[in-house]
Amino acid sequence: MRIHGELRRSVWRNTDGTVGIFDQTRLPWEVVELRLSTWEQAAEAIRTMRVRGAPLIGAVAAHGVALAMREDPGGLEPVCEAMGETRPTAVNLRWALDRQLARLRNLPVGERAHAAQDEADAIADDDAETCRRIGEHGLPLLRGIAERRGRVNVLTHCNAGWFATVDWGTALAPIYTAHDAGLDVHVWVDETRPRNQGAALTAFELGQHGVPHSVLADNAGGHFMQHGEVDICIVGADRVTRTGDVANKIGTYLKALAARDNGVPFWVALPHSTLDMTMRDGVAEIPIEERSEREVTEVTGRTADGRIETLRVAAPGSAARNPGFDVTPARLVTGLITERGRCPATEAGLLGLYPEKA
Amino acid sequence: MRIHGELRRSVWRNTDGTVGIFDQTRLPWEVVELRLSTWEQAAEAIRTMRVRGAPLIGAVAAHGVALAMREDPGGLEPVCEAMGETRPTAVNLRWALDRQLARLRNLPVGERAHAAQDEADAIADDDAETCRRIGEHGLPLLRGIAERRGRVNVLTHCNAGWFATVDWGTALAPIYTAHDAGLDVHVWVDETRPRNQGAALTAFELGQHGVPHSVLADNAGGHFMQHGEVDICIVGADRVTRTGDVANKIGTYLKALAARDNGVPFWVALPHSTLDMTMRDGVAEIPIEERSEREVTEVTGRTADGRIETLRVAAPGSAARNPGFDVTPARLVTGLITERGRCPATEAGLLGLYPEKA
Repeated sequence: MRIHGELRRSVWRNTDGTVGIFDQTRLPWEVVELRLSTWEQAAEAIRTMRVRGAPLIGAVAAHGVALAMREDPGGLEPVCEAMGETRPTAVNLRWALDRQLARLRNLPVGERAHAAQDEADAIADDDAETCRRIGEHGLPLLRGIAERRGRVNVLTHCNAGWFATVDWGTALAPIYTAHDAGLDVHVWVDETRPRNQGAALTAFELGQHGVPHSVLADNAGGHFMQHGEVDICIVGADRVTRTGDVANKIGTYLKALAARDNGVPFWVALPHSTLDMTMRDGVAEIPIEERSEREVTEVTGRTADGRIETLRVAAPGSAARNPGFDVTPARLVTGLITERGRCPATEAGLLGLYPEKA
Repeated sequence: MRIHGELRRSVWRNTDGTVGIFDQTRLPWEVVELRLSTWEQAAEAIRTMRVRGAPLIGAVAAHGVALAMREDPGGLEPVCEAMGETRPTAVNLRWALDRQLARLRNLPVGERAHAAQDEADAIADDDAETCRRIGEHGLPLLRGIAERRGRVNVLTHCNAGWFATVDWGTALAPIYTAHDAGLDVHVWVDETRPRNQGAALTAFELGQHGVPHSVLADNAGGHFMQHGEVDICIVGADRVTRTGDVANKIGTYLKALAARDNGVPFWVALPHSTLDMTMRDGVAEIPIEERSEREVTEVTGRTADGRIETLRVAAPGSAARNPGFDVTPARLVTGLITERGRCPATEAGLLGLYPEKA
């Protein structure tokens, strides 16, 4: 997708073998490119959320393994273990590391560096193509609404756009595809406290691509649904169980409840790498990352004269709690949009698209 | 209630007849007292939310009429009309103005100044006593939970504490009463974007009174309910219809949905002045104030070195929408806590407590 008109991906390999990313903690104020030379730098970028979004952290982790193999091809397992502990909720991280392990484990040490780089490139290319297909499979949902109503109002939560993947995005892929196909799409962008990925990243992405959108406080979506101003919700996911339960950014569950209460379709867009077929009960089983309370008590942004500042917004001395994700039970999900098509958020639905995972 | 240990009300009359308020836009960073000398200053304080909270804006509007009557006792109706237009959603504003109109309209012009002051004092005293009783009628709900579970975790949204009323608060009155009675109460405080009245005012109030609490992003409440960490929700209201529909700060509806989905009791605390017996369908009928988009795209707080700053948090160029309230349908409300006791959120329930409103 585009930054200032130029086609980019959110992670890439430089000719010298280092890995490039955008520092997403600096967006939307500055477009800062970082060069990762070691696996420790890749792990740090994931842990501190310079890169975030389930598919993207998988791709960056795979590149991190490739960086490690250039340095010490004997240290495969400990590197994968350490990388796997950077973020607990998104299963794509584990998936990408397992894919590197499977490819590299039985190779002679001398062949690992090249193979790891090749595998990381393949994971990234696959993710871009996967997301493009998610866009194609989501398009008919938006087209159907546009044909009935003229315009499509989509509500999304957090950032499941191209900054959360390698390219295109998951939840935003159908939106970009529909916009490019000439549909009149307008996006309600939840600001997504506490880290404001909606206000900062989704709004930035949509603006760069020319997609009309409005930022909302996370509190406001229910009101707009009650008044018929939301035609469909599409969100991404960090982990989807065998039964269709969806872990996604904190607050997703509240929007799914409001959608159900108002008859608004609630769709979840995900690549195969977000599936966790080992789990059946998302609320009970999916590990939920609890992050620093300072993400809640403080806010970072830009002053009128262009300085980046961090402010305390909570009363002095008050503590905070900060779970990063919640789980939306499958019963609230209208369906899943994957690179293989759409399906109900059920085991039968998923196995219909992914019979090899039975 | 207390600021720095001193017992205060949120509005008072000075000996020279001027009216005192705290500038709530400066809290929690600075405790700034303002002196209102004219009704225009009172109207400005309401419009710009230096005072906010449905009962408090009613009390300040009543004092504003008293200020106007000192200046020009012939101008009663136009002043009440102008004051009534400062905020559209909270019905207490209209109620207080109607009470002044009823008291003053048929008085000789020369008697209005004194009567208006007397009526404003009565409205303020009534509100303080009303809220104290709301605390007493809410206490058994918290005591019942404490007896079963040892501790009570209450979730509240926005600020329905003493800064939203003249004293005690509505939703927070049962919490203060329970805390003072020795119950182990902990409060989950929704930060309440976009204006952060939870993080700024509720957290500050609870801290000043020594009530344990944790600030949450508005997105997080559903997650804590799913995991059994919320025993009861109590919120305030800006208008409650004859049928029990509740207009309150934007986002209240989402918490009511989550409470229903998790079997958590959802109570609304209100004084009689918040009832609007002329309306039956809250979603269709209650006017919802839409405020400046800058409340969403910008955040104000304090830097580490003590400066108050305002930051942009949304991507440059992105627009926002900002409805200030939403409506929680009565079907999601476990019950109402009023100064006359508790009742179901139904017409029969309300008429049982307020037969004179039939």
